[in-house]
Amino acid sequence: MKAADFMARAIELAKKGRYKTQPNPMVGCVLVKDGQIIGEGWHQEYGKDHAEINAIKNCKKKFGAKNAYELIAGSDVYVNLEPCSIQNNTPPCSHALIKYRIKNLFCGTLDPNPKINGRGVKLLKESGINIKVGLLKKECKELNRIFFVNQKQLRPYIILKSAQSLDGKIALKNGESNWISNSESRKDSHLIRSRVRGIMVGRATIEVDNPSLTIRLDKSELGLKKNESIDQPAKIILGNLQINEKKQKIFSSKSRIIIGSRHSVKQLKTIQHLKYKKREFLEEFIQDLLKMDISSILVEGGPKTLNAFLANDLFDELVLYTAPSFLGKESKETFNLKAPERIKISKKLKVVKIERFQDDIKTTYYNRKV
Amino acid sequence: MKAADFMARAIELAKKGRYKTQPNPMVGCVLVKDGQIIGEGWHQEYGKDHAEINAIKNCKKKFGAKNAYELIAGSDVYVNLEPCSIQNNTPPCSHALIKYRIKNLFCGTLDPNPKINGRGVKLLKESGINIKVGLLKKECKELNRIFFVNQKQLRPYIILKSAQSLDGKIALKNGESNWISNSESRKDSHLIRSRVRGIMVGRATIEVDNPSLTIRLDKSELGLKKNESIDQPAKIILGNLQINEKKQKIFSSKSRIIIGSRHSVKQLKTIQHLKYKKREFLEEFIQDLLKMDISSILVEGGPKTLNAFLANDLFDELVLYTAPSFLGKESKETFNLKAPERIKISKKLKVVKIERFQDDIKTTYYNRKV
Repeated sequence: MKAADFMARAIELAKKGRYKTQPNPMVGCVLVKDGQIIGEGWHQEYGKDHAEINAIKNCKKKFGAKNAYELIAGSDVYVNLEPCSIQNNTPPCSHALIKYRIKNLFCGTLDPNPKINGRGVKLLKESGINIKVGLLKKECKELNRIFFVNQKQLRPYIILKSAQSLDGKIALKNGESNWISNSESRKDSHLIRSRVRGIMVGRATIEVDNPSLTIRLDKSELGLKKNESIDQPAKIILGNLQINEKKQKIFSSKSRIIIGSRHSVKQLKTIQHLKYKKREFLEEFIQDLLKMDISSILVEGGPKTLNAFLANDLFDELVLYTAPSFLGKESKETFNLKAPERIKISKKLKVVKIERFQDDIKTTYYNRKV
Repeated sequence: MKAADFMARAIELAKKGRYKTQPNPMVGCVLVKDGQIIGEGWHQEYGKDHAEINAIKNCKKKFGAKNAYELIAGSDVYVNLEPCSIQNNTPPCSHALIKYRIKNLFCGTLDPNPKINGRGVKLLKESGINIKVGLLKKECKELNRIFFVNQKQLRPYIILKSAQSLDGKIALKNGESNWISNSESRKDSHLIRSRVRGIMVGRATIEVDNPSLTIRLDKSELGLKKNESIDQPAKIILGNLQINEKKQKIFSSKSRIIIGSRHSVKQLKTIQHLKYKKREFLEEFIQDLLKMDISSILVEGGPKTLNAFLANDLFDELVLYTAPSFLGKESKETFNLKAPERIKISKKLKVVKIERFQDDIKTTYYNRKV
């Protein structure tokens, strides 16, 4: 195995934490001695041990504490993200790597967190460890897109999602939108819900469509083990919701409800309400959401909410399910941006994935490089 | 090799004639004796020998005329379409197969031409040949979608093509549409041109965009050999074109020009003009085009022309190149159909292919089963 293969393994391990680590990044770690893996681990859950510590523990478990100490001395360590240098919920990983006298550290990227960025690496270098930063850099950044946005833009990672007809309509004139996409597409959209910490809709969507905003997939569909739990994302509502606890389905499950609006809403124990003075409070609202540990949100509509994010260029990803149907000129358009003066200067996205669910086409776009 | 493999080979051979056989179908033929292919052929060009005759000739060439006669007697014949039973440009193939005393005939589909449909097969059966119809039926029908539409609907096969932005716009408000799609997409669209007998645009497209409407690919890009020629499709214009021979690029190459309109146009030797009295002459016009051997057309726009075909449900295929850009609400929509009362009863297409050209997505839809 080559260096890149060990890093690829670290990324693979990191992904095992995908449902549980937010707002932390996903991190995997591989310890290598004489070309053999002697220990591996990953950050499993927010607040618990980091990947490096888990890899050391894994080595101890395999070879016994004393042998592990000798094995790790002089070893190569592969980790997709710079080891932390500060005490947070757990002691800094850099200290452990120094204590165990590793020889070479390969890390995919520096930590974008300004408090760490380069400091972990510096500390290790000063202790005589050889450092190589940038192995599989692109893949390591891609893995933690959410975390990079959080740290650099100080807001949640934002995914906009919509189902539309072939002619770009999101609903009939009377508001009917059930169902433009097919059941396979709708099931897939629950998979996206499982990867975020909050689902946002405009108040009209709650009042008119009355969705539950929950993940309705079972553990096996999510790739979870029996002893793992499904963390339901927070339900986030934009605007002055007319609350009706008995009728509105968002109140029928226990997960967190957050409302951001300019006016007061009915005060309830089950609701966190953020009130804003400015007319344009969207940016402030989402920044506040990150402070509340909502590191990623899926914006599910309706069209007004969707286009508010687009118009403010507040999004990282756009997911479109396009059905092969025509809803006609009288129906509501999905997008509502202002036209550019010339085609050359039009806003352009990057296509990252095209999938097919029967006759629906799912397209995933990125907004910009993070 | 199994029966289905021999039929697949016949289909493969048939495709070699794809640029040259229209308005005839593509046909391939494989002669098999004791499990071995003893001859194969295909219909190479309109007006020339049919596939069955070419397969017999191929067998003669390989084994000599006398041996071939003995070999073909008692053989199995695989052909994707029912052998013809009437004299046209060439003597009917059924007669040859009877004369050569073949034993079993496998044909993919019956000929949809009402003058033949089942008659070729009947003739062969009466001569004691065993017939099996329907082997790889779906693939054989797909191969000759154009021919089936021609025969059953008495009109050309119609492909609608458009490039659009992610938000479903075909041009800016001022008409600017160059270029929404990228150069790879535009190159691919020339490949579609090479498979049709006519390219249609509305008169405004000629007057405003001034396209050449020619295939601008070289032979190698089309998969043609050096000694094969590129047949340029006819240029077909819908509406009362204001002719300007010196400025309009359609006049700068020699291929056929056909105009269909309600009013007179400037009379030129180079133009065939079809004049109609009815306001709604589109259907009559395309029927007339088939009578003029235009068995397939590619409708390239503009939006008015495109939507006239859509509104009349006069199309077999829709090809959309979607760029990852936003052209905004003020821009011109690609589609302009009337909205359905309910989503359930909306017009639906069938997705047949999704391709990617850099960040453009090409989607090919079929209208209905032919």
